[in-house]
Amino acid sequence: SVNGARLWDSLMEMAKIGATPKGGVCRLALTDLDKQGRDLFVRWAKEAGCTITVDRMGNVFARRAGIDDSLPPVVTGSHADSQPTGGRFDGIYGVLGGLEVIRSLNDRGIRTRRAIETVIWTNEEGSRFAPAMVASGVFAGVFTEEYGLSRADVDGKTVGEELKRIGYAGDIPCGGRPIHAAFELHIEQGPILEAEGKTIGVVHAAQGQRWYEVVLTGQESHAGPTPMPRRRDALLGTARVIQTVNEIGLKYAPYACATVGMVQVHPNSRNVIPGRVFFTIDFRHPEDAVLAQMDADLRAAVAQIAESGKLELTKLEQIFYYKPVAFDADCVASVRAAAQRFGYSHREIVSGAGHDACYLAQVAPTSMVFVPCVGGISHNEIEDATPEWIEAGANVLLHAMLERAQS
Amino acid sequence: SVNGARLWDSLMEMAKIGATPKGGVCRLALTDLDKQGRDLFVRWAKEAGCTITVDRMGNVFARRAGIDDSLPPVVTGSHADSQPTGGRFDGIYGVLGGLEVIRSLNDRGIRTRRAIETVIWTNEEGSRFAPAMVASGVFAGVFTEEYGLSRADVDGKTVGEELKRIGYAGDIPCGGRPIHAAFELHIEQGPILEAEGKTIGVVHAAQGQRWYEVVLTGQESHAGPTPMPRRRDALLGTARVIQTVNEIGLKYAPYACATVGMVQVHPNSRNVIPGRVFFTIDFRHPEDAVLAQMDADLRAAVAQIAESGKLELTKLEQIFYYKPVAFDADCVASVRAAAQRFGYSHREIVSGAGHDACYLAQVAPTSMVFVPCVGGISHNEIEDATPEWIEAGANVLLHAMLERAQS
Ligand SMILES: NC(=O)NCCC(=O)O
Ligand SMILES: NC(=O)NCCC(=O)O
Repeated sequence: SVNGARLWDSLMEMAKIGATPKGGVCRLALTDLDKQGRDLFVRWAKEAGCTITVDRMGNVFARRAGIDDSLPPVVTGSHADSQPTGGRFDGIYGVLGGLEVIRSLNDRGIRTRRAIETVIWTNEEGSRFAPAMVASGVFAGVFTEEYGLSRADVDGKTVGEELKRIGYAGDIPCGGRPIHAAFELHIEQGPILEAEGKTIGVVHAAQGQRWYEVVLTGQESHAGPTPMPRRRDALLGTARVIQTVNEIGLKYAPYACATVGMVQVHPNSRNVIPGRVFFTIDFRHPEDAVLAQMDADLRAAVAQIAESGKLELTKLEQIFYYKPVAFDADCVASVRAAAQRFGYSHREIVSGAGHDACYLAQVAPTSMVFVPCVGGISHNEIEDATPEWIEAGANVLLHAMLERAQS
Repeated sequence: SVNGARLWDSLMEMAKIGATPKGGVCRLALTDLDKQGRDLFVRWAKEAGCTITVDRMGNVFARRAGIDDSLPPVVTGSHADSQPTGGRFDGIYGVLGGLEVIRSLNDRGIRTRRAIETVIWTNEEGSRFAPAMVASGVFAGVFTEEYGLSRADVDGKTVGEELKRIGYAGDIPCGGRPIHAAFELHIEQGPILEAEGKTIGVVHAAQGQRWYEVVLTGQESHAGPTPMPRRRDALLGTARVIQTVNEIGLKYAPYACATVGMVQVHPNSRNVIPGRVFFTIDFRHPEDAVLAQMDADLRAAVAQIAESGKLELTKLEQIFYYKPVAFDADCVASVRAAAQRFGYSHREIVSGAGHDACYLAQVAPTSMVFVPCVGGISHNEIEDATPEWIEAGANVLLHAMLERAQS
């Protein structure tokens, strides 16, 4: 089994980089803090004897050589970037859990037939640069490198520029090489495991997602002398869409999720009727057909809201879409077997979040290991997990990987 | 009569400072551009023989001496700051119209019994620093200098600091001296005059206003794995309040106005359920009693929305309030008489916007002159007015002031 205390200590050390007042982290993709986090991981991985490579999307691979190093490796890892007010475990647990697997194998002098790689995938959160999981998406051939490198933040800075700036623009191509099996360790980010008192989630599937960008345009005008009937208030229209998005989420209960997370009002002045609003929508459902219905409902409602509010629907664009993912049955079985070996309580679970593993699943047999998180809360500074859960998840990862790395 | 071409040229020259792509201006209060606008006015006023003084709130007084300079002066002026995407006439027309009155008196060598002063009032818009008209409010004794100087923008910079930085922190006290009569020339900023084909608005009253700041707090959480029923979405609550504000505006038709102009979502990330939203509300009505009912409706609705959305109402504060203003009957008569003298079509009108004149009315006999604006549009880069309207308004101002300055 792994060294749970060492893993916990590494997590707490890493959490100092970008630490926030309420105990979380802010380590947005490709900022100076993200660089510091990457540097720390690279140092630790080198100390554990790994070879480091960085690809053109800035994905960092720490490789522990196998007995037959020409065989496709077994891969794990996750992301080191965070939400603006993110937690200490989201993503980085999968990275340092992978490092702990390597350290534990070193402790015991175990050599594996296949190489083992622990990866930091660039910009998984999709917060600074949309969409999420863009670099694992490029690795899996879903997006081109050109597309990935040209994603821009709200200030117009691109992934490519920022990778260069922080010194993580590698020169090897992103993807295009075989992987024998992939596993990702992550906190659940939802309430199910904790509510049912289960330690391990055996992740057999992930919800599908559709992300949208919307711009409603009305007419800026003075909040005082402009009579109500003459107004073309882009924010009022946006408020109606926000409620509609919520209604769509409720309509396809219990599995649908529907969220407006980001709103930018123009000119955002107290006594000006807003003339333009940019906002985003995030739809999720485990069934692709339902996701398509949600899309149709949204488009009909937004068109009607724009018309009745005398607004122009300047943009309604689906900028990100992936179908529900079914993970590889053999990899799922490896996770289940590892949980059983340790006698951990476990259940099959569908991931509500997107993960780099969802893209890897397109090019390699893949599965995930979940552990609970306190109150089901994630994407929040107060995100938390117990040392017991953290250790248990890494133990399951170790054994699932070991089984595959010897085959 | 005034020199309309000169006034128009001065307006166009001033509009270069902070010019925006769509033909408007962005000259936010106490920015470098505001300083440039003030400097240009000061130069022109000195060239017209005026003495310049600046008070502690940064209000700039350009004084043309009277025959009996010990008598209280007749005052005009308005503001030089703009909205983020403001027009070329809002405010600055009243400042340069006042300058044109002085220039015209110079042209004809007319000496007035009382001094004439044209003023730039600091931060009228209330966009960079809330509330609006803060410096004329201090002048009128409604706010203390301390309150006025401590107003802060979203970055925490205060009026006092920014006045020092741009060199407009004067050392004479703000207010506390007698004014014989005051007039403010302004574009209507609403649709009435243009719709009725009237050139001059004889402003006898102004609507009352209540401004609010609201903070709703929910719980940040992941947009994917957080089931709809568990959510405490602060943006969804905000969307409901935005709709309620609009309903309150419609309920007290035809005179009520109700606007949400500014929204800041936290953390404003696409895949995070918003945990906290700050937003503002602007209520207006010509009758104080109705404004009080609107306030009561708002408080009841927001409490209910917070409760049903499992949100905390962290803040619901009225940060700005003034009662409807009735302007001085004699000053109103002076404006009406001046319009009649020129044969301009005119009508009595209630100001929908707040103006520095509304505060001056508390310490001096005051009235206003309105001219139409194209399409009733203001607080918008496309705000426009014809040279004929601009000249007509200045002619009315000249004669109204002249009548009072000789008395
Ligand atoms: N795990 C995680 O938070 N991923 C971000 C992408 C998503 O929103 O699902
Ligand atoms: N005239 C003007 O736009 N004043 C700003 C204050 C208000 O919103 O009424």
